[in-house]
Amino acid sequence: MRVLVPYDARDPKTRLSPLFSPAERRSFARTSLEWVLSRVEEAGHDPLILATDDVEAPWPTVVDDRPLSTAVNARLGDADPPVAVVMADLALASVAALERLFAASGDVVLAPGLGGGTNALLSRTPAFRVDYHGASISDHATAARELGIEPTMLDSFRLAVDVDGPSDLVEVVLHGEGAPAAWVRDAGISVTVVDGEPTVTRPGEEP
Amino acid sequence: MRVLVPYDARDPKTRLSPLFSPAERRSFARTSLEWVLSRVEEAGHDPLILATDDVEAPWPTVVDDRPLSTAVNARLGDADPPVAVVMADLALASVAALERLFAASGDVVLAPGLGGGTNALLSRTPAFRVDYHGASISDHATAARELGIEPTMLDSFRLAVDVDGPSDLVEVVLHGEGAPAAWVRDAGISVTVVDGEPTVTRPGEEP
Repeated sequence: MRVLVPYDARDPKTRLSPLFSPAERRSFARTSLEWVLSRVEEAGHDPLILATDDVEAPWPTVVDDRPLSTAVNARLGDADPPVAVVMADLALASVAALERLFAASGDVVLAPGLGGGTNALLSRTPAFRVDYHGASISDHATAARELGIEPTMLDSFRLAVDVDGPSDLVEVVLHGEGAPAAWVRDAGISVTVVDGEPTVTRPGEEP
Repeated sequence: MRVLVPYDARDPKTRLSPLFSPAERRSFARTSLEWVLSRVEEAGHDPLILATDDVEAPWPTVVDDRPLSTAVNARLGDADPPVAVVMADLALASVAALERLFAASGDVVLAPGLGGGTNALLSRTPAFRVDYHGASISDHATAARELGIEPTMLDSFRLAVDVDGPSDLVEVVLHGEGAPAAWVRDAGISVTVVDGEPTVTRPGEEP
């Protein structure tokens, strides 16, 4: 199955600016991208990087600098279903979780992200289109129903965690198994319990 | 299977104080408790409320006002395995997610909560004990390995969301299907996208 992996090749992960330099953010985003691509491949499917700018990578890549939803919808319109869209910042993605996504029944399968996003989806209909603005998970469920399709909701913690802000790094440190977690640990990030709440800290920073 | 559901009957959900009065917090906690108990029953198992104080409820209840871990471990010591522990504040818990927990293989099954907690677990060994302090999911995995058991990690978004603070209510509004979600919506809570970030607001409050 074709699996689109949208990727911000320019200034990714701006909400991690309190912890990481721009170069570090690009490095972490790149590490997460490669992690996701290799998990997709290991699950037996064909990733395609959908990048905002040129990317040097040993995977098929298409550059489209239009807004995310426009760029994804252009590919959904061209592709023979089924086609999946998996975000590049799913640092906890596992082959098992992705296999559950790809194997889930239904013409539209949605994996919610924390905070209302849609971290992964699978469409078996040529008519489905995305709109990632705002709380997209509700909009995508509505869009499926407007096509007469009851969406399948995939219940996955590993696909729900996308690394947007510092608090998401708590999950990466605690649950990450691969390269993105190693990157975060090598950056000196650790989890400290502050007032009963696990919090990420980096040497030289106030917790 | 016996399923312990620990419940703070006194002053629950203090981190929701910015949004709800003490009476409202007790009402919401009670609604979530009943939701979890009824989901456990519908999944075919036997819930036991493990409360810090007297609770009037049509379910078996035991009162133990010692710290959470002490109270749970006393029951784990008495119970014939298998036994499960499911937190009372899992407002997104579904029968399907709980069935996955109860059916998971392995002598120790752990369902992580956001922020390092252990929102649900299943033990098939009489020797396993809990310690809910801090980032308990890592400690529970270590405790299992010290018994020679590789823990099974349950990958569930619905069991990962426990309602501790206001941001968790975003998930309840977006994904809740039952009484706790209805309670939150009836309280006037809604999700507004502020700076691209879904945020809960209540009438009369600044978003």
